Amino acid sequence: MSSVGNHEPGHSEVCVEDTKFLEHFRMLSTFGATAGGGVDRQAGSEADGEQRAWFTQLLTENGFTASFDQIGNQFGLLELEAGRPYVVVGSHLDSQPTAGRYDGAYGVLAAAHAAFRLAAEWQASGVTPRYNLAVVNWFNEEGSRFKPSMMGSSVYTGKMTLDSALATTDPAGVTVREALEFTNTLGEGTGPQAAYCAEIHIEQGRSMERDGIAIGVVDSNWAANKYEFVVHGEQAHTGSTVIADRHDDLLGASLLVAAAREIADHFPDGAVHTSVGQLDVYPNSPVVVPSRVNLLLDLRSADESLLQEADRMLHERLEQIERSAQVKIEKASSHCWPVTPYQTEGVALAEKIAANRGVSHARVKTLAGHDSTNMKDIVPTVMLFVPSVEGISHNEHEYTTDQDIVTGLHVLTDVVRSLCEGELDRQ
Amino acid sequence: MSSVGNHEPGHSEVCVEDTKFLEHFRMLSTFGATAGGGVDRQAGSEADGEQRAWFTQLLTENGFTASFDQIGNQFGLLELEAGRPYVVVGSHLDSQPTAGRYDGAYGVLAAAHAAFRLAAEWQASGVTPRYNLAVVNWFNEEGSRFKPSMMGSSVYTGKMTLDSALATTDPAGVTVREALEFTNTLGEGTGPQAAYCAEIHIEQGRSMERDGIAIGVVDSNWAANKYEFVVHGEQAHTGSTVIADRHDDLLGASLLVAAAREIADHFPDGAVHTSVGQLDVYPNSPVVVPSRVNLLLDLRSADESLLQEADRMLHERLEQIERSAQVKIEKASSHCWPVTPYQTEGVALAEKIAANRGVSHARVKTLAGHDSTNMKDIVPTVMLFVPSVEGISHNEHEYTTDQDIVTGLHVLTDVVRSLCEGELDRQ
Repeated sequence: MSSVGNHEPGHSEVCVEDTKFLEHFRMLSTFGATAGGGVDRQAGSEADGEQRAWFTQLLTENGFTASFDQIGNQFGLLELEAGRPYVVVGSHLDSQPTAGRYDGAYGVLAAAHAAFRLAAEWQASGVTPRYNLAVVNWFNEEGSRFKPSMMGSSVYTGKMTLDSALATTDPAGVTVREALEFTNTLGEGTGPQAAYCAEIHIEQGRSMERDGIAIGVVDSNWAANKYEFVVHGEQAHTGSTVIADRHDDLLGASLLVAAAREIADHFPDGAVHTSVGQLDVYPNSPVVVPSRVNLLLDLRSADESLLQEADRMLHERLEQIERSAQVKIEKASSHCWPVTPYQTEGVALAEKIAANRGVSHARVKTLAGHDSTNMKDIVPTVMLFVPSVEGISHNEHEYTTDQDIVTGLHVLTDVVRSLCEGELDRQ
Repeated sequence: MSSVGNHEPGHSEVCVEDTKFLEHFRMLSTFGATAGGGVDRQAGSEADGEQRAWFTQLLTENGFTASFDQIGNQFGLLELEAGRPYVVVGSHLDSQPTAGRYDGAYGVLAAAHAAFRLAAEWQASGVTPRYNLAVVNWFNEEGSRFKPSMMGSSVYTGKMTLDSALATTDPAGVTVREALEFTNTLGEGTGPQAAYCAEIHIEQGRSMERDGIAIGVVDSNWAANKYEFVVHGEQAHTGSTVIADRHDDLLGASLLVAAAREIADHFPDGAVHTSVGQLDVYPNSPVVVPSRVNLLLDLRSADESLLQEADRMLHERLEQIERSAQVKIEKASSHCWPVTPYQTEGVALAEKIAANRGVSHARVKTLAGHDSTNMKDIVPTVMLFVPSVEGISHNEHEYTTDQDIVTGLHVLTDVVRSLCEGELDRQ
């Protein structure tokens, strides 16, 4: 629970605005609160609708114009000069089913408070910056209820069509369109035009905590190969069917889960991460050898050549498992992305700002996908991390100290100010 | 698809009653029919209600008094002399979600047709046998929707309390009581008093087909140890969480599934069967390392000492898996039963009858549980098997030839006649 090295010199006293920010964060954490200290507010759920209504009110009270676009992205606009593009800053309020309070939510609230401060600043000084300012709460970043993840930013950046997003169904058959209507968050249009983007997020790993770093400046994302596999077997009786006659797809799927871990263990120093998060068995009855298992398997690495080697090992294993479990493994879908950098001028800007504030900082990579990884492909984007205590994430015990989230807010505020004032235009 | 050696000498021509039986069987197979040629009529479902209404009509049309007891067991009574106990013959009409047409349904319909023939016989001859006759369709033998399996016969035989059975819920939270009310099959009372019991069923294995046996006389059941394990891990991010920090319960569960198969493979000649049929992952989200997996694992053997050895191996593996996957494995429940014999006088009776008919027969063991394995603990019980083509079971392609199901009906009719006429009383 230490936060060694995370102090901002001269900022040890928390100011009134920071106190208000922490209060708002505690308030936000009550939406979909779970008994275990986390939150459950999947995209388009009642809790998601409630927190979005609350956020609309917060934006409006602070002089921002709140609206939803055609895929339910929530914007708070400060239009300082009509017709100018926007610096878009934010993250996502939706969560996994039993999630922590920080993932996404911290980034949205920090964006809002940064924006409120800058609005007050510009009003007081009479300065009109070059760009307008938009706070954003992207729809369905998590992808737990509606797949794929990062849906709102994917539609915004043209990576996914609006129609396919709205038609996506959850396991109960509810469409995204219906969920957005249910939560009264389906709007119109394509949102503000972006010139720059910024996002702050918890690290979700433990490297920054270990190294005593208060601000991580994300310079690239890890490469990832994500697969949906369907293991096909044949239904049989768990008791009476002779073992040699079985085509047990749950055995095949289990060997695949184990193989994924063995592949990760093959590479030293955690250079490759592998995982299976979702696995569904059919017919999933106590006395039936199942006939079908669907599972999602990920391979990730910061080194594309290692990822390629891991992928080759996986495909070798697929064939072995087909033979040993007498099953067929179908690759139902795949979604692969390379290592892609965040714009170097944005990285340099964030480093300069952190240094000016005397905040410990380092370049980091993001292993997880974020809305900013979509946005960086269309506009220069700055992505900042704050430390995660013990690296715990997607877990009710996710935690970042108040000091660290306040430091992040300060650095983000400076970054957004610079972007709005056109600091990167001059490069 | 062969049925070598299954001919009954002198019965090569199918009689009118046998044709009617086959017609009724085809009719019965339309309830809950699936596109794949099987059936889906889980206990208390709409399809189950429909077939039960149809069966009531069939019983009534043939002069039997149809009723349901307090746990939804369906009886067709032929009370030849008031106050006398009954020979209870039948099986179950409910099925697994995508099941074959024969499992259970064949035994219920064969029981009804055997009873109809005997009723006509006794009416024609003026003979009144010693016992009354009851056809039974036990409620929820499969246990796929409402656990445990063999629920109706467990309540009937006092192995499960009525209250706990009625309060059992399916995954959607519907109780057995509600499902029985929904299908209009909740009755009163405890059903007829049994003196003897008989059941016929498909083998669900391939030994009889291999050996060219038309009738299997079941002399005992395999011993089984059934466990529900809960693997406890910790939610984490599938991408960003360092592998060494993970407590991945899906990895632990997968290693357990693989270990179960390794244990079966350790014993020669298929002496031990192991399986995991049901496995549920929480929260089962694409980018979350799960925190909990529930699974049902079975070990079965005809040899109790081998089962004990297999069980020791399993428990050794549990500890290894806890260490290697950094998870905790909880044994949430266990249900173990020994090898128990069917009454030898019943076995001898069935053998004598098969021999008299010139039908090939052999003693077999049941690997699966049946309602008769409950009944044999309270009254002398005869259990017969007919062959399963290629041993396929709990599968839409489950198949037994018309010739074999008719031969089974003939032998069952003779067995029930003998039981009703008190043949076993004299021993």
